[in-house]
Amino acid sequence: MSKSSEEQSKASSTKNQPKVYVLRWGHRPKRDIRLTTHVALTARALGASGFILSDIEDERIKATVEKVVKNWGGPFHFEMGTPWKKVVNEWRAKGGIVVHLTAYGENIETSDVMQRIKAQGKDVLVIVGSQKVPSEFFSSEVSDFNVAIGNQPHSECASLAVFLDRFFEGKELTKTFENARLVIIPQQRSKKVVRKVNSEPGVGKEI
Amino acid sequence: MSKSSEEQSKASSTKNQPKVYVLRWGHRPKRDIRLTTHVALTARALGASGFILSDIEDERIKATVEKVVKNWGGPFHFEMGTPWKKVVNEWRAKGGIVVHLTAYGENIETSDVMQRIKAQGKDVLVIVGSQKVPSEFFSSEVSDFNVAIGNQPHSECASLAVFLDRFFEGKELTKTFENARLVIIPQQRSKKVVRKVNSEPGVGKEI
Repeated sequence: MSKSSEEQSKASSTKNQPKVYVLRWGHRPKRDIRLTTHVALTARALGASGFILSDIEDERIKATVEKVVKNWGGPFHFEMGTPWKKVVNEWRAKGGIVVHLTAYGENIETSDVMQRIKAQGKDVLVIVGSQKVPSEFFSSEVSDFNVAIGNQPHSECASLAVFLDRFFEGKELTKTFENARLVIIPQQRSKKVVRKVNSEPGVGKEI
Repeated sequence: MSKSSEEQSKASSTKNQPKVYVLRWGHRPKRDIRLTTHVALTARALGASGFILSDIEDERIKATVEKVVKNWGGPFHFEMGTPWKKVVNEWRAKGGIVVHLTAYGENIETSDVMQRIKAQGKDVLVIVGSQKVPSEFFSSEVSDFNVAIGNQPHSECASLAVFLDRFFEGKELTKTFENARLVIIPQQRSKKVVRKVNSEPGVGKEI
């Protein structure tokens, strides 16, 4: 889990499918523990390759993400404490682009912003805030695109999920996670979870 | 805001586009205030016509939703305290169907569950839980469909958003809300909010 975003970005440049990382700005440990956890797990489940908790450290978030990756598989990069500006600058220096999700941005449905983002063919750093973000987030100094999932106030979790689902065109939901100890087998009517024996694919017992 | 779900359901039967209501089960006032608020606002912003906080009353959720509707427009039905079983039974008695969102359900991307839901052409009650739900939620006594937004643990907020975005095929993000006092005009680089004068469409001053 300690792989730097630098190494991840280099690795992705050799592949076709751009990678997405999610930067969570403005986490407040007293208020946002659950929301930030939900944002991190949404990032993982909806196809992002990594999550960065900027500017602050929160061991509880780290513990939860590590536990989910341990049980349900990865890889999934997690880092915390890095200043947001450093993340953004390094990301752009490596050739990546930055998408800021905000209710004020271009409406993903009524504009061509998603097409323009995808046309870049570059790795995407998605910034989601938990409180009113610095005005510079809207500027080209920080973001390449400001995107709104509808122009109504709702939830950064919802916005992130819809953005990722549209960016990956639904394929992120077909992904198999590596080294998963637990796998859910979809059911119409019940719960079916398989525990993998020695993390071997195909070998498991139902629990 | 006091219109009953019964009246809403009748109204919808005269129109083509099925309506969606969201039932939030398992809200715990101490723990879930923010998450439940996010679920309610996500429901509204992603095209649902109403939100039901089942089994428990929480004036803070009510106040937040009412404030958002007052400022950003509606209509949006809100009710709280109704026992979930009553909501489900009445919904089904009026000809509606019930979709339970759960990590264990049919994967929305790899199965045809969404096509089957839409083929029903009926109003949909989406149940989202905040904690481990009663096992009966999976049975045909309660749900017509169990749907997973990928079979990974993440967030009910994210699941709800993706479900609604796919159900309404993105059109929910083009919707104009009635009696909105505030309207965001999408921007590439800044924040632009218009305050409507006397709630007249087209008449407003930028704030």
